Amino acid sequence: MLLSTGGTIASKVDYRTGAVTPALSASDLNEAVPELGKIANIDAEVLFSEYSENLQPDHWTKIAKKLDSLANSDYKGILIAHGTDTMHYTSSFLSFALAGFPIPVALVGSQRSSDRPSSDAALNLIAASTFLVESNTKGIFLVMHHNEDDQTVACHAGTRVRKNHTSKRGAFETMGGNPAFIVTPTLEIQKNIQDDFFKDIKYNPRMKIDTKVSLVKYHPGYDPKLIENLIQTGCRAIIFEGTGLGHVGRTMYDVVKKAKENDLFLGMTSQCIDGRVRMTVYESGRDLLELGITPLENMTPETSLVKAMWALGNSKNADEMKLLMLENIASEF
Amino acid sequence: MLLSTGGTIASKVDYRTGAVTPALSASDLNEAVPELGKIANIDAEVLFSEYSENLQPDHWTKIAKKLDSLANSDYKGILIAHGTDTMHYTSSFLSFALAGFPIPVALVGSQRSSDRPSSDAALNLIAASTFLVESNTKGIFLVMHHNEDDQTVACHAGTRVRKNHTSKRGAFETMGGNPAFIVTPTLEIQKNIQDDFFKDIKYNPRMKIDTKVSLVKYHPGYDPKLIENLIQTGCRAIIFEGTGLGHVGRTMYDVVKKAKENDLFLGMTSQCIDGRVRMTVYESGRDLLELGITPLENMTPETSLVKAMWALGNSKNADEMKLLMLENIASEF
Repeated sequence: MLLSTGGTIASKVDYRTGAVTPALSASDLNEAVPELGKIANIDAEVLFSEYSENLQPDHWTKIAKKLDSLANSDYKGILIAHGTDTMHYTSSFLSFALAGFPIPVALVGSQRSSDRPSSDAALNLIAASTFLVESNTKGIFLVMHHNEDDQTVACHAGTRVRKNHTSKRGAFETMGGNPAFIVTPTLEIQKNIQDDFFKDIKYNPRMKIDTKVSLVKYHPGYDPKLIENLIQTGCRAIIFEGTGLGHVGRTMYDVVKKAKENDLFLGMTSQCIDGRVRMTVYESGRDLLELGITPLENMTPETSLVKAMWALGNSKNADEMKLLMLENIASEF
Repeated sequence: MLLSTGGTIASKVDYRTGAVTPALSASDLNEAVPELGKIANIDAEVLFSEYSENLQPDHWTKIAKKLDSLANSDYKGILIAHGTDTMHYTSSFLSFALAGFPIPVALVGSQRSSDRPSSDAALNLIAASTFLVESNTKGIFLVMHHNEDDQTVACHAGTRVRKNHTSKRGAFETMGGNPAFIVTPTLEIQKNIQDDFFKDIKYNPRMKIDTKVSLVKYHPGYDPKLIENLIQTGCRAIIFEGTGLGHVGRTMYDVVKKAKENDLFLGMTSQCIDGRVRMTVYESGRDLLELGITPLENMTPETSLVKAMWALGNSKNADEMKLLMLENIASEF
């Protein structure tokens, strides 16, 4: 099954303006890459036609509900054509909302539109279809051009991946490790992971979401008043992108305390993008632990943010939310 | 000259608590690495003793003023011992505030405290001193353990560098290229750059700073009201960490317009961390250009934030600020 949501993979260049606009339908996409027919019989459906910077949590919910309706279908897997800009945010949400989903899902994008010679649309679609048919796995994966070889495609765990380059075709990377699977130029599937993507094999859809979560990147000169503003506007959880092992400056202690007194969930990640938060090494980290900040290990800031929106929507109180945040549901740690 | 500001490089483990606390003085540091004496006669002075997550723009100004007082001294170069967490923010500020500074400056940190066997403090100090004495260059550099070899040290341009790993010794990387210089295990200096670090050779200190700048990382579910809050609290400039080539969602257009009407400077960078912002490829980018957002090329979000604080402090109006933001002063582009 191919679901199209828009993005460059479903777009062509407008030769009048020179800009790229979303245009192709899911079946156009299917027809544009005739090789797909040899890999599988693919049904196609357009969910919406948006660049991914315009996708919002409501769109995530629509995709999740559509997937949920296909949970008991005969499809071997599901392809989602998606813009690359926020693909890793969407893949994170689907990973939590559809934990244990019975068939594999591949989000596929392209960095160059499909009518350009340098387009990676066909390669990514072919590799993703092959992966879905042959990998015999479960999980939400982001399937894109790999860095090291011009014909190699990487299948990244949907909760561990980040867009790290604005323009090159191999823009996505699995943080802190190798991609879960590699599709070689001869369409062989190499498996790099030992563990299952979902930590619980039972399908357990929890599709609610509450977006009252803020992402705060700490930096010198950060005005603590901004945190007070967040509390006042009804924010229920803050994901900090701290420095290094998970720090914010001493100037933040008072507002952190205040946020805690207002029962906000406070999670710590690192703006270093790679490595693991460790708040016991330095005095400052210990102070922040005492103030009630929860270290989020090696979870990326983006995945942490999305998980917090999901956990806030699917828990009754702050304690339950914290438990969900620290439970490894879909290889996010 | 060795100036100490604190950080792990100037710290030791407290064996009672197991935590690392800042303790060594600049002269202790000098004495702790006797090899330094063979490279140069080093005077030492403690400016302050803080972990770098606690450093604020006021501290940057103090360092800049101290350096400015040494501009006409006989020193061959200046070492600044500094915590690694916000080292790249400090190096950015010094690069703009002290454009054309006549002698080279090396910020040196360590990822492991100097009384630990795995410490990189001595290696980094020795390499940085050698670099200052022998490189015959000008500029603000960040000198830290390199990734690829256990004895190689990288000298990164102070405006192009990012801490990309929470814990490993080679945590820093030059974005979009190689480090400006490499110090080999035999203390030879390899030069990787063609151009001078400072684009104008005249020393032109402009040390003012205005911190009314916010860094906004856009993501699905970002609440546009937060931008209204920023305008209301007196924010004068926003640096967006957009998605991909420099996008924010359509939900942001109205508040972006409002911010522009309030005469805020609006700059666009990418959360992809590598590559170049290009806002003419997609409709959404073009819309944002029309709304008055300034694309900041390949400048990192962190450097853009610091430069905006500096440009706001050193310009009379928004037009002048924009000119400064787009002028390549210290290899930030």
